Amino acid sequence: MSSIIHVEKHFNASDTVRDIVIGMSDGLTVPFALAAGLTGAIAASSLVLTAGFAEIAAGSIAMGLGGYLAAKGDYEHYFSEKKREESEVKELPEVEKNEVSEIFKEYGLTDAEIKPILERFEENPKSWVDFMMKHELGLEEPDTKRGLKSAITIALSYIVGGIIPLFAYFFISDARKGLVISAIMTLIALFAFGFVKGKFTGAKPFKSAFQTIIIGGIAASVAFLLAKFIGG
Amino acid sequence: MSSIIHVEKHFNASDTVRDIVIGMSDGLTVPFALAAGLTGAIAASSLVLTAGFAEIAAGSIAMGLGGYLAAKGDYEHYFSEKKREESEVKELPEVEKNEVSEIFKEYGLTDAEIKPILERFEENPKSWVDFMMKHELGLEEPDTKRGLKSAITIALSYIVGGIIPLFAYFFISDARKGLVISAIMTLIALFAFGFVKGKFTGAKPFKSAFQTIIIGGIAASVAFLLAKFIGG
Repeated sequence: MSSIIHVEKHFNASDTVRDIVIGMSDGLTVPFALAAGLTGAIAASSLVLTAGFAEIAAGSIAMGLGGYLAAKGDYEHYFSEKKREESEVKELPEVEKNEVSEIFKEYGLTDAEIKPILERFEENPKSWVDFMMKHELGLEEPDTKRGLKSAITIALSYIVGGIIPLFAYFFISDARKGLVISAIMTLIALFAFGFVKGKFTGAKPFKSAFQTIIIGGIAASVAFLLAKFIGG
Repeated sequence: MSSIIHVEKHFNASDTVRDIVIGMSDGLTVPFALAAGLTGAIAASSLVLTAGFAEIAAGSIAMGLGGYLAAKGDYEHYFSEKKREESEVKELPEVEKNEVSEIFKEYGLTDAEIKPILERFEENPKSWVDFMMKHELGLEEPDTKRGLKSAITIALSYIVGGIIPLFAYFFISDARKGLVISAIMTLIALFAFGFVKGKFTGAKPFKSAFQTIIIGGIAASVAFLLAKFIGG
């Protein structure tokens, strides 16, 4: 019981929460900033909407597929390293024993105290490999299905985040007026997202909300000024 | 000597390489896909360029600041967890001892073999905390200066990647003709980037190059069709 309580105190954001955060922070920021930027150069909401949707499509696919490949890469990396450790434990046991010793010597253990650990590992090479994977290389076995889940979660979060800033341009044909409503809606969404993100990741919620708004605000302002300078 | 050679065999992409990959994969993909998408709806290269630059500004700032906050978050998380471990080692030593035992029992060690390890940790609480940070929680002490470096590396990589697809639109005023040159240049850049990324991250270079092109191609095609459907 005390062990369960203890584990819960150390918060680690789950993979899904992390994927939602990855997708939504860019989804809420980039299409908003792009739409705001274009408003600096273009008067018609319809064009801003076209560009905004093209950006959401491009961004969600690029980030989603990127997430898929990252998860697949982690998976392949884990198993290629595992294969390597398995052959090293078999073919270079003395080198691997030295590595185990070095890990424990770092924490002040003596050779005499390390010896039984080495003996135990020699008796059970599977445990030895697992130990090297986790404690020498710091790698955890990844979930095989994570790639697809990760891709879908990131892409959907990007789309949901990206549509919020575009709403206003649907109903208001003058892009500059649309921008005002879009900015208000997006700032509220950025605040809520930053706040919830802070809750989930163990950061201070208000600080997180404030930081999220600052990023969106700076990105949108620079994009606006740049587009006005180039296009206006 | 053999230890140095051995360490090099396990490849781990450095933080800087990872930041370049993060910035450049989106930088090469999203502005290209957006520009291609807009070409599905707009005939003038000047507008495509305005939107493209607004996107580069928005994307590089959002991703760069996002990277800064992520690095800062890792740093804060590490030290808040370290503080917690320090107080737990002091105030709940029995709970922490159980945790150490559980780590070693997983690999088949007996209580008798674990006892000297626990005694050593009790004598040296600093080592104990370091051990718990690395081997219970899997956390490495982060570099304090990483936030700023990370932000600049990601943002610059995004800008460099994003400018490549826009070049063609500078010189060719008809956006559809510009798109053809832009697509050729970007595919070459995506191939080269994917190839080098594969070399650096230990993946197969040609496979990595192919995957990178596929992502860019899908993102651009969907953005093009969507923009054509909405705007054209």
